[in-house]
Amino acid sequence: MDSTKPLILVVNDDGINAPGISALTAVAKEFGEVVVVAPDKPQSGMGHAITLDSTLHLKQVNNFDDTIAYSCSGTPVDCVKIAVTQLLPRKPDLVVSGINHGSNSSINVIYSGTMSAALEGSLECIPSVGFSLQNHSIEADFSASQYYARKIISQLLQEKHNKDVCLNVNIPNLSTNLIAGVKVCRQAKGNWEENYDERTDPMGRKYYWLTGKFVLEDKGTDTDEWALANNYVSVVPVQPDVTDYKIINDLKSLEK
Amino acid sequence: MDSTKPLILVVNDDGINAPGISALTAVAKEFGEVVVVAPDKPQSGMGHAITLDSTLHLKQVNNFDDTIAYSCSGTPVDCVKIAVTQLLPRKPDLVVSGINHGSNSSINVIYSGTMSAALEGSLECIPSVGFSLQNHSIEADFSASQYYARKIISQLLQEKHNKDVCLNVNIPNLSTNLIAGVKVCRQAKGNWEENYDERTDPMGRKYYWLTGKFVLEDKGTDTDEWALANNYVSVVPVQPDVTDYKIINDLKSLEK
Repeated sequence: MDSTKPLILVVNDDGINAPGISALTAVAKEFGEVVVVAPDKPQSGMGHAITLDSTLHLKQVNNFDDTIAYSCSGTPVDCVKIAVTQLLPRKPDLVVSGINHGSNSSINVIYSGTMSAALEGSLECIPSVGFSLQNHSIEADFSASQYYARKIISQLLQEKHNKDVCLNVNIPNLSTNLIAGVKVCRQAKGNWEENYDERTDPMGRKYYWLTGKFVLEDKGTDTDEWALANNYVSVVPVQPDVTDYKIINDLKSLEK
Repeated sequence: MDSTKPLILVVNDDGINAPGISALTAVAKEFGEVVVVAPDKPQSGMGHAITLDSTLHLKQVNNFDDTIAYSCSGTPVDCVKIAVTQLLPRKPDLVVSGINHGSNSSINVIYSGTMSAALEGSLECIPSVGFSLQNHSIEADFSASQYYARKIISQLLQEKHNKDVCLNVNIPNLSTNLIAGVKVCRQAKGNWEENYDERTDPMGRKYYWLTGKFVLEDKGTDTDEWALANNYVSVVPVQPDVTDYKIINDLKSLEK
């Protein structure tokens, strides 16, 4: 491997066979040496899950022509940990995750395997970005996503940012010429109103499928949801401290 | 069910058969009507994972005498979602999660199924608390944890707090009389230095176990790690917005 070029780790949560990771790998290869480590099966909604109670298996695959690639039996976060600890010749210069089939704006960031993998990269002090396209289809057109991934990767590699910078990038489902540009914003307040589709199996036992509707609870014009609704690519910097600083003082009564 | 008493949902991530959830259920029953919904197997380290690509199964169990209880085939967060949506007669007054076998202070909050279940409760606008004891053993003594769970549950049910309050409570592994009290604090900055134990199976294939060492990167005396090291119960309020507000302005160059 050429140690003068940037080393880029590519991960995702849709699995090693998803079209989105091929689209991202193609862009990453324009900038340096690339290693792909991705789950061997879809892992959407895995959040920051890690494999504690069982073992991990790796398999070298050739999904990406001459690019070194492994499928991993674990979660997206496992992929980052084992890549950095076991597989890569040195700490990578960048972790890119995605391109996710489906957006990870607003509250979805905490359920997202794509973004948890990126956050894990930043916890290892590697600048990291998750890319997600607002289209769940397996046949989604990733060309606008690739255009903006190229732009953002280029800037991250050139500009001075902290080693633990982590970006949640969501791309509207539009062709490149219809996208209005990039907005750096905050995570919109929103939530899911869940429902379960209750069914009965042939043995008479009930089982459930999760369904739901996203509810935006935020009228701000500085949010990722606003940006996407107005045809912008949203970029939200994320970090792992979930302390609710606003209410620490209100809770002091608990010390009595 | 008596609708004049508080309704309390008890969940965990160690599974319906863990001693910690029995200890917490016993305390919750002192305050109102209780329903337990917990994973049918250990789900430590599941973070905010949800089951999207497969079905959920529930089974009524009688682990807790006369208390209504279900085991669920999903993750800790699934347990909260399906309890609130399908199983409970009304929105509960409180979600309590735990008592976890092992602490969830500092960065562990984002890997923790216990705390993700509590956060999910708060996303449903139900005051929620996760309790974790600094002892991984199946034979841990939960009496001090029960003492402080009782105190905190009592205060949360009596005092005026926001509906989306969520507390990460960690209890040092000490007897009640050696605990110095309660400290409301922030999440300490810390991280895991991972290692993988590489082994070879009888068929000659490599496999890996995750191991690692926690590294505290924070000298603050207002953190959960400081509190625990000084024999206090730590209480960190948590919330789901992971935006890194400090660096939004530094990133505006990405809009060019």
